[in-house]
Amino acid sequence: MEGKEMTIKGYTLQTIAETVGGELYGDPEVIIERVLPIEDAEPGDISLASDLKAIAMIKESKASALIVSLDSAEMDRNLIRVRNPRQALIPLLNLFYPRTARQAFIHSQAVVSPSARLDPSVSIDASAYISAEVVLGANVVIYPNVYVGEGSEIGEQSEIYPNVTIYPKTRIGKRVRIHAGTVIGSDGFGYMKHESGVQEKIPQIGSVEIEDDVEIGANCTIDRATLGTTRICAGTKIDNLVQVGHNSEIGQHSVIVAQVGISGSVLMGKRCVLAGQVGVSDHVRLEDDAVVGAQSGVVRDLKAGRWLGTPAVPSIKAIRVSHFIPKIPELYRQIQTLEKRLTELKEYTKLAEETKDSDQ
Amino acid sequence: MEGKEMTIKGYTLQTIAETVGGELYGDPEVIIERVLPIEDAEPGDISLASDLKAIAMIKESKASALIVSLDSAEMDRNLIRVRNPRQALIPLLNLFYPRTARQAFIHSQAVVSPSARLDPSVSIDASAYISAEVVLGANVVIYPNVYVGEGSEIGEQSEIYPNVTIYPKTRIGKRVRIHAGTVIGSDGFGYMKHESGVQEKIPQIGSVEIEDDVEIGANCTIDRATLGTTRICAGTKIDNLVQVGHNSEIGQHSVIVAQVGISGSVLMGKRCVLAGQVGVSDHVRLEDDAVVGAQSGVVRDLKAGRWLGTPAVPSIKAIRVSHFIPKIPELYRQIQTLEKRLTELKEYTKLAEETKDSDQ
Amino acid sequence: MEGKEMTIKGYTLQTIAETVGGELYGDPEVIIERVLPIEDAEPGDISLASDLKAIAMIKESKASALIVSLDSAEMDRNLIRVRNPRQALIPLLNLFYPRTARQAFIHSQAVVSPSARLDPSVSIDASAYISAEVVLGANVVIYPNVYVGEGSEIGEQSEIYPNVTIYPKTRIGKRVRIHAGTVIGSDGFGYMKHESGVQEKIPQIGSVEIEDDVEIGANCTIDRATLGTTRICAGTKIDNLVQVGHNSEIGQHSVIVAQVGISGSVLMGKRCVLAGQVGVSDHVRLEDDAVVGAQSGVVRDLKAGRWLGTPAVPSIKAIRVSHFIPKIPELYRQIQTLEKRLTELKEYTKLAEETKDSDQ
Repeated sequence: MEGKEMTIKGYTLQTIAETVGGELYGDPEVIIERVLPIEDAEPGDISLASDLKAIAMIKESKASALIVSLDSAEMDRNLIRVRNPRQALIPLLNLFYPRTARQAFIHSQAVVSPSARLDPSVSIDASAYISAEVVLGANVVIYPNVYVGEGSEIGEQSEIYPNVTIYPKTRIGKRVRIHAGTVIGSDGFGYMKHESGVQEKIPQIGSVEIEDDVEIGANCTIDRATLGTTRICAGTKIDNLVQVGHNSEIGQHSVIVAQVGISGSVLMGKRCVLAGQVGVSDHVRLEDDAVVGAQSGVVRDLKAGRWLGTPAVPSIKAIRVSHFIPKIPELYRQIQTLEKRLTELKEYTKLAEETKDSDQ
Repeated sequence: MEGKEMTIKGYTLQTIAETVGGELYGDPEVIIERVLPIEDAEPGDISLASDLKAIAMIKESKASALIVSLDSAEMDRNLIRVRNPRQALIPLLNLFYPRTARQAFIHSQAVVSPSARLDPSVSIDASAYISAEVVLGANVVIYPNVYVGEGSEIGEQSEIYPNVTIYPKTRIGKRVRIHAGTVIGSDGFGYMKHESGVQEKIPQIGSVEIEDDVEIGANCTIDRATLGTTRICAGTKIDNLVQVGHNSEIGQHSVIVAQVGISGSVLMGKRCVLAGQVGVSDHVRLEDDAVVGAQSGVVRDLKAGRWLGTPAVPSIKAIRVSHFIPKIPELYRQIQTLEKRLTELKEYTKLAEETKDSDQ
Repeated sequence: MEGKEMTIKGYTLQTIAETVGGELYGDPEVIIERVLPIEDAEPGDISLASDLKAIAMIKESKASALIVSLDSAEMDRNLIRVRNPRQALIPLLNLFYPRTARQAFIHSQAVVSPSARLDPSVSIDASAYISAEVVLGANVVIYPNVYVGEGSEIGEQSEIYPNVTIYPKTRIGKRVRIHAGTVIGSDGFGYMKHESGVQEKIPQIGSVEIEDDVEIGANCTIDRATLGTTRICAGTKIDNLVQVGHNSEIGQHSVIVAQVGISGSVLMGKRCVLAGQVGVSDHVRLEDDAVVGAQSGVVRDLKAGRWLGTPAVPSIKAIRVSHFIPKIPELYRQIQTLEKRLTELKEYTKLAEETKDSDQ
């Protein structure tokens, strides 16, 4: 969404080396205009050799300069050596593509309730809908077609991308980013089953709180609590198409990869990682630093450490088991062979005895 | 979305006891202002002790009153005793947070086709788009940024939350709720593969019918039929991020949990339950009262009862098997040990025979 | 979305037979008004008997005519015989429900940047938002509430359904259809973890390219690359709720079924098929014509052929293994029985020896 800010600028290699804190080998005066993957780079570009695939391409790359690790061989081209090339990407991209503050404005086709309290620095684009009693902090950016329900609050420098829906009474912290199409605060999935089979809705009158520095991907759904609060704690990063059920809490600095489903009343600690398509049953607790592998199903409380499989067990155990799974048909044959051999031996033994008996 | 209706009111404990049909112990005149989880409640609040976790917190809770089960011990605080505390939550929340009818209005920034037929009681908010020939029943509520395609019909008291897309010719019943971001009636996924590998689109000219009292969560997708109708039968509840393929039918009062994927031409009976992340193959039939556990893959027709796993088998069997799965490496070792022992025994036996033979 | 075009017209059976290239048996002058599934058809309708279920219904169907395969028995009703009834559906539906070009128009409530370059034939509906420097080709259709970010391009005859979000700098080819609620170009999921546990965002400054003749379902998410391009190659069809991570490439004429999750930097060849709910790990490569069964987890590179399971192995092997999985408890019992028998035999053998010894 940074359109204008993406305009190409040039920097000397000297400036770049200083920005990423690396050692410069080569011409400090060469002008670099773009950052591109090593396979796409042309003269005037800089690239990173941060993985084996990229390192293998160093020789043939047309880039004017490369950022490499400290232990890479010297060669006859412009290089910046850093401890961790991938880490250097952040200051590098922030130099070339700085985020600039949006100018404050409210589009004439935005709908803003007179009772909303807006910092003068906010930007609200067309067809956005800011309901009664909403509070928007400094430099909040609301993209087109966003809906913010009654009484919701959004902290300073947060950005809400197009077509996001924020239900009433949601609290969103500072520097939060919510990507397009995500829905925050829709009703938790709670019904009471009658004997007739009819499912009666349990009103969902709780709320959602998204703390500071959280980023939420596109087309996610985070349900409001029945009573109380569904909470995404500070610094947590959520990928696309993730579901978080009512009354759950995701601890600080956790990482939730795409298509994960977290049921209701789950309590996750800090720095947890759920890889893609993991499912977590309701009322489960994950301790700090629990890490769960892709497609796993978490049905019991988990301690810190690596977990995998459905139901999730320690990763090392799951991997060991999965190594044996393809051999199961073979096991079956081996058992049949054993049975046959045993029967033969038994018969032979008896026969031997009988022979002996008759011998005597 | 009930902003205004959420205003706090106070009720006497006497009134609350009558509302939930419970026995009152304590002061009938105490005023209760809010319903909160037992751990968050303050003086002036009422809470429910409906599960073990909450029951353990009764003593320390600051709530002014508690709703407990008939068999809970008497104690020196305000109590309402009911048969099922969780069931009492519905009348309790309806008392404190009543749903009030929206005032009829059509926002000046809504787009409404002159050929749409609207009951005078409907409410259509900003940037909603009501296409030609659309029919909206009494008290229908259309939130901002909703799109309703040509010829679609929505029955009385239904609510369509922000950013929902309803494709043309969709029929939606009475008292239906469709949460934000959901898409009803997009094209079914049907192509004809040519020998060249090119996939040619099969036009999807059928429709979708959502019957009365259905609730559909946020960011779901329900595809229109190729020919005929994709149908969600009366009373069914669907969670978030659920996919329903073309020409499928989900029977009455079913419960479909988040991230379930139902392929095309699936036929489900009444009161079926699909837990989170279940997948159902195309053309499969589920009989009434089939219940499928989380992350299962349904590839064959299922009868009533509980099913689990991929492919889904009776739950009791799946649980039994999953109990043995971690022991597979051990099985492997046991078989190797058996083979070794058998070989040793065989050799010993033969040796013994030979010894005997040589003895004689 | 083809409201108007869906108006019922009548054709003679003669015209229909010519359109689908079939042999006509019966009355060439009978007028057919609709195409319906065989179980729903009434007099005046035509149906297809393209699968066993439909073939079984031929006798009782009220349809005025049926399209059947060449080898079906003659009978006393109007028939059109074709080589492949399902294939005949495409020309049949295109006859009855032709797609007609939209009239060029720009709704007064659309927001269009003065710097956008629009072909005069485009149609842009209400509350759509066309940002600066956007380029729209001939006959592009933009439905209500679509957001197109700065500098994005959309090729001729492409259709963007309601509530779609296209982030800046996205390139979309010709004849592409993107269904409602889909998000193209949101930030890739890339963070650098600090020792404190804090996850620092890696700016995502790459882009997305959707090539010609791609169709993307509803509520999908396709992330922009960190650097470089996330690419969906020509002719590929993507179902609903699919996630494609940053820097991935999906080869031509591939088919990606609902709820598939493709991680970052995945490289897929041509004509690949991923069935529903498949997950693909990052940096994995799939060769041309790799076909992966539902719910599989792809964690290693795959060659052409059919794959199944987590981790995915050749289908034939996975099916064989899954046949044995339910027998694991039985294996366990068999091994216990074997151990017992072996021990008994050993004791018997020794006893026999000892008896013998004592005999002698």
